[in-house]
Amino acid sequence: MGTERADTDLYPPDRVKRAAAAAAEAGLAALLLTPGPDLRYLTGYDAHQLERLTCLAVPAAGPARHEPFLVVPRLEFPAAQASPAGSMGFEIIPWDETDDPYAIVTKRLGTLSGPVGLSDRMWALMVLRFRDALPGAGQELASLALGALRVRKTPAEVSALRAAGEAIDRVHARVPGWLRAGRTERQVAADIADAIIQEGHARVDFTIVGSGPNAASPHHEVSDRVLQRGDTVVVDIGGTMPSGYCSDCTRTYVIGEPPPEFAAYYRVLRDAQQASFAAVGPGVTAEAVDAAARGPIAAAGYGEYFVHRTGHGIGLETHEDPYIVSGNAEPLQPGMAFSIEPGIYPGPHGARIEDIVICTEQGGERLNNASRELVCVDVR
Amino acid sequence: MGTERADTDLYPPDRVKRAAAAAAEAGLAALLLTPGPDLRYLTGYDAHQLERLTCLAVPAAGPARHEPFLVVPRLEFPAAQASPAGSMGFEIIPWDETDDPYAIVTKRLGTLSGPVGLSDRMWALMVLRFRDALPGAGQELASLALGALRVRKTPAEVSALRAAGEAIDRVHARVPGWLRAGRTERQVAADIADAIIQEGHARVDFTIVGSGPNAASPHHEVSDRVLQRGDTVVVDIGGTMPSGYCSDCTRTYVIGEPPPEFAAYYRVLRDAQQASFAAVGPGVTAEAVDAAARGPIAAAGYGEYFVHRTGHGIGLETHEDPYIVSGNAEPLQPGMAFSIEPGIYPGPHGARIEDIVICTEQGGERLNNASRELVCVDVR
Repeated sequence: MGTERADTDLYPPDRVKRAAAAAAEAGLAALLLTPGPDLRYLTGYDAHQLERLTCLAVPAAGPARHEPFLVVPRLEFPAAQASPAGSMGFEIIPWDETDDPYAIVTKRLGTLSGPVGLSDRMWALMVLRFRDALPGAGQELASLALGALRVRKTPAEVSALRAAGEAIDRVHARVPGWLRAGRTERQVAADIADAIIQEGHARVDFTIVGSGPNAASPHHEVSDRVLQRGDTVVVDIGGTMPSGYCSDCTRTYVIGEPPPEFAAYYRVLRDAQQASFAAVGPGVTAEAVDAAARGPIAAAGYGEYFVHRTGHGIGLETHEDPYIVSGNAEPLQPGMAFSIEPGIYPGPHGARIEDIVICTEQGGERLNNASRELVCVDVR
Repeated sequence: MGTERADTDLYPPDRVKRAAAAAAEAGLAALLLTPGPDLRYLTGYDAHQLERLTCLAVPAAGPARHEPFLVVPRLEFPAAQASPAGSMGFEIIPWDETDDPYAIVTKRLGTLSGPVGLSDRMWALMVLRFRDALPGAGQELASLALGALRVRKTPAEVSALRAAGEAIDRVHARVPGWLRAGRTERQVAADIADAIIQEGHARVDFTIVGSGPNAASPHHEVSDRVLQRGDTVVVDIGGTMPSGYCSDCTRTYVIGEPPPEFAAYYRVLRDAQQASFAAVGPGVTAEAVDAAARGPIAAAGYGEYFVHRTGHGIGLETHEDPYIVSGNAEPLQPGMAFSIEPGIYPGPHGARIEDIVICTEQGGERLNNASRELVCVDVR
């Protein structure tokens, strides 16, 4: 749990009403939202994901519209009331250890005229309980209604992401001091984790330190490998701020002198990342931004070594829409936030450069501003 | 991600086969397991829970039985191979960013003769994709098949839980040194979090420090409240060990002299916790263990202040079966592991005492052994 901000700019109280309207438009009779980013987006409530059901029910807007309500285990009742959800005007209904909370939700919802929309991260345990408790209603994803709202960040959300970006930039500024031949990846990751908290995050989400051959494995996390002179080190790190919004930034460092060929493809990568960033703008498709990174890398002969998508959306989740990937023809809109993180992994070393970028009316705005030039540390 | 132990005692390679047999017995055609405790239980693979599908498919045992297989994003392929799952003999199939991994799973599964069993924590996102990709098959929970396996811990699992209990006991042994009037709950929780890692956990799961009136709120976590003399402080803490197994232990401390009446109900609580522990044995129902705690508390006049169940199972999850709660007539079996944690919260203070207990042939065995006597710290 992060600390919750009762920030009505960031979590405006009209979101539940807007969600009810979006549900009606999407043909959903109601939204059922368990703890996670959808619930937090609508109410600011950073609830526990537990086997005990917490669920915000939002009936779709319409003539016979019922009011939204939040069902919570009695133990969580004080926390729910103390959260921003406590002052949003809907009823909070506690249930006791021997109650059936699914029956409480479905009884109060009454007869439904269409499918319910479930939060994307609802556990199967709850999906199937709701399926059985609402045998007439179909089930779809709440993102049918909420996706279009969440994907365009408000100015307050952009500010929150900017603060997250600044915090992780401050961590990257300290990384060169920890990268020394003789230390292990794990020791460096521990320093980074401490700094992620010190620089203002509420939670550490990931601390990838991939050195030497591990730099060539895009999702390597951390190991007991000892850093050596001549290593390239991919440092991909992020956390969640007290606001709920996430950071995510990658830089690649070199210990001492870079291995042969590395400097050449690092320049290709840096330029590809810049080209992809330069492609960002309203109406440009997500896949065009991916192609803008992929093109120069392929042209330089490294195409087969860029083995992942160019980026992912970010907000209350580290990975969310829009995905910057071939096949995603969705046009970018102002307010969208996503990573641009091409990589080249020829082995036995590799590199990745990642910034979070906002699509604005004028084009892209980077939220990470640590240098993208090659940083050689521990040079003797 | 914790560090993974390639420990064939803890994660024996025959579990997938046993799961296939259990699926057949439960009337399921196959199990579909995404990252989480079910997947780790069967394979030892501590996979990322991501929007990209990772899924172990286990066709039910039978005459036309297909082999199990694990579908993973290509990025995760090296990690999957390096995990214990990499040497269990089933195929690991990587998928590329532009593939449809649901189609890969369902095509390979072929025609199914019954419902699939989904891991309890599978995201709705994946539940509904599988529903649409397997329109003929019903969906049930994998716990129908795996529940009976997971609920009875093997000797290796009990050893792992014992090591977790010893680690959290060492943390509790250090807590009195951090509880001082003038410090905040948050400062104490930060010390505890550091110690949870130092004493051998891979991850901090929760650090509840409820002081003064916060001690009367069972699920209070932590705040900036400053500790004062005369406070009772509920310290409920736990983490996950590198083995994957969890710790969870609560003690209630007093700063200086306890408030009036507290010592009396603390004794009632201590005796109730002991009575509940003493009730544990094969064939005794979960609700009888709950009642054994509730009886003495009610008899002493505090029944209305014991507002939660007596306990929850523990293993690869902090909360899992069996739940020690009224209405659960399940008889205990040797190897079951669960908390016994009655509390009394009359306000403006409160207390809880929690140990993890194993049901053995001979009765209960506590895995937490920090003193349950009243500990007064910072006494002048």
